[in-house]
Amino acid sequence: MNYPELSLKLHQDNQGKIEVVSKVKVETKDDLSTAYTPGVAEPCRQIHKNKENVYKYTAKGNLVAVVTDGSAVLGLGDIGPEAAMPVMEGKSILFKEFANVDAFPICLATNDVDQIVETVKRISPSFGGINLEDISAPKCVEIERKLKEELDIPVFHDDQHGTAVVVAAGLINALKIVGKKFEEVRVVINGAGAAGTAVVKILLTLGVKDMILCDSKGIVYKGNPENNWLKEEIAQLINKENRKGTLRDAMVGADVFIGVSVGELVDADMIKSMNKDAIVFAMANPIPEIFPDEAKKAGARVVGSGRSDFANQINNVVAFPGIFRGALDARAKDINDEMNIAAAYAIANMVKEAELNEDYIIPSALDKNIAYEVAKAVEKAARESGVARI
Amino acid sequence: MNYPELSLKLHQDNQGKIEVVSKVKVETKDDLSTAYTPGVAEPCRQIHKNKENVYKYTAKGNLVAVVTDGSAVLGLGDIGPEAAMPVMEGKSILFKEFANVDAFPICLATNDVDQIVETVKRISPSFGGINLEDISAPKCVEIERKLKEELDIPVFHDDQHGTAVVVAAGLINALKIVGKKFEEVRVVINGAGAAGTAVVKILLTLGVKDMILCDSKGIVYKGNPENNWLKEEIAQLINKENRKGTLRDAMVGADVFIGVSVGELVDADMIKSMNKDAIVFAMANPIPEIFPDEAKKAGARVVGSGRSDFANQINNVVAFPGIFRGALDARAKDINDEMNIAAAYAIANMVKEAELNEDYIIPSALDKNIAYEVAKAVEKAARESGVARI
Repeated sequence: MNYPELSLKLHQDNQGKIEVVSKVKVETKDDLSTAYTPGVAEPCRQIHKNKENVYKYTAKGNLVAVVTDGSAVLGLGDIGPEAAMPVMEGKSILFKEFANVDAFPICLATNDVDQIVETVKRISPSFGGINLEDISAPKCVEIERKLKEELDIPVFHDDQHGTAVVVAAGLINALKIVGKKFEEVRVVINGAGAAGTAVVKILLTLGVKDMILCDSKGIVYKGNPENNWLKEEIAQLINKENRKGTLRDAMVGADVFIGVSVGELVDADMIKSMNKDAIVFAMANPIPEIFPDEAKKAGARVVGSGRSDFANQINNVVAFPGIFRGALDARAKDINDEMNIAAAYAIANMVKEAELNEDYIIPSALDKNIAYEVAKAVEKAARESGVARI
Repeated sequence: MNYPELSLKLHQDNQGKIEVVSKVKVETKDDLSTAYTPGVAEPCRQIHKNKENVYKYTAKGNLVAVVTDGSAVLGLGDIGPEAAMPVMEGKSILFKEFANVDAFPICLATNDVDQIVETVKRISPSFGGINLEDISAPKCVEIERKLKEELDIPVFHDDQHGTAVVVAAGLINALKIVGKKFEEVRVVINGAGAAGTAVVKILLTLGVKDMILCDSKGIVYKGNPENNWLKEEIAQLINKENRKGTLRDAMVGADVFIGVSVGELVDADMIKSMNKDAIVFAMANPIPEIFPDEAKKAGARVVGSGRSDFANQINNVVAFPGIFRGALDARAKDINDEMNIAAAYAIANMVKEAELNEDYIIPSALDKNIAYEVAKAVEKAARESGVARI
């Protein structure tokens, strides 16, 4: 299929992908008087009396802003807010189709951390949640932290946590196949942006002790003057022996390789240098760090990628719709580690033990039951971790 | 009908009134690959190459932000952004139902003019137009002016211009009935906020020479130290003899009374003091300045109000959906006086000469043909006045 051409046609024929429709009838005078003036004054009054009533009488509780500044869109880079719009609309329709979340693209004409934070805060009364998207690292992490502190609605940067959750889900099942535990594996992550650093953090929470993060220059280590603040922060948490060297060096003896970087950085020799029963998630899009068939041929036992034309597609769409559904259903004031971990296990558990095998560690991105199961688990975790508000 | 109670139930049962849905299918891998990655990268690239392509490949060209700070909602006053949400959702569904415009409520957690302007500018990449709503005067006028200067998409404050257009439409037809001309009538407007000052301006454009504007203290005149900047600006344009006095004084001998203020300020004697064949639009909601039947009894010949239970309901819904439809269809960079005047005549012309009478000067708010006719006229005016971009 010629996706670029088909996609242009689809977008042009439909003038984009989203529309805003009414859930109520507007046909008669009575309809108008109930949905609009004079009747509408009454829900306004009730919300004015008690702000929490906004969840009872408006769409806020189901509305998520998909916010970007267009600074790190797909593999395209800093293409600006207008050019980011097709991706944000795409995200919005996935929210709706997979989890009945009403999501709306907010593409911002500013790249400044404080201005982005300020703007999202100012528009937050309309929304029940904020999904940050395709904002360059490390500022995306800073923006997310500030918003999480200052807002009482859930804030989630999908490029970080969506990716981390789905990698964790895949790894939970891959480790079952090879019979290894989080505590005993050595993991190499390539790509020290939003996704890579979030993968490090979720794997720390899951118990991984031995992790090396690499960027385009090689192993990330403490005190490297080239580190940005985020890399330095991560370097303080892992790589205890402060190893230095190249990605090739790092991969020798590793049990798990996770690529969230760019295409074709990993060759067969590097896979061969890994430990027995190696697990390889080569998720660069659209060209993976190493193609799944090559990785298999070089001896990797479980291989995943971002591609739908190979087994084990590791795709955020199995995570973010259900995570937000669960958070919104609990009226959670945050999406925390507990909720993300619950989502990872819920996704992993969609693959029944009997069906689990090297080529089936993660459910199909198209399975619309996933979001429901993820939402249930996330809602429960929200309650148990004390962030639910209903 | 008990509209307050019905409205609470409607809002609660539906959890608000809007939802964001997909215009395209998301069922198969191919659907995902076309609407989302990897296909979606291509429309992104095309927009990055030429920003105008955002109109070709995204929903932007049909998306309108309904923006408020909740500072002047209906007759409820400054109830804040959350409590304003039911009205903004109501506005959004009217846009969709009457003119197939996709409108989305943006309720802002700031009351500051510059912050509102800045925020709207920052979120503008997602939108094809901005509809300001229920923002207190005079700052609403300042916000609109600044945004009109700084944005290349149409900006429209409905409380000003929507009201002005529909008053103008009603007056065009009312004057036909009484056989008077704009140039020769004396008009008294009560209410010197967003609506009243915009009515003054559109009537000036339509040729009215003799106008008096009143606020709660009486006639607005030049140099009154209590004038805010907007009242002073208007006072420089009308009331050439610089008359002072009460509303009661102003109405003696007037041909037209337009009330955009609060209920029950006008009595039968005041109507009796008006000129022969008086025209009275008493539009305060829900209680008009004088009830239509009383005004008629006191001798007014043509009477309109904001109420749907009397003849001649003067309702913005006949104006704003078609105005935006026309502006978006022309990809207008502004909504200017020419477009507003064209809308007023298009609305007036919906009433056929043969059917025109004292009790039928304006088409029904529910007539869904109005928006189409208004849009055609507005689009034409956009082209002729040089603001169309396609």
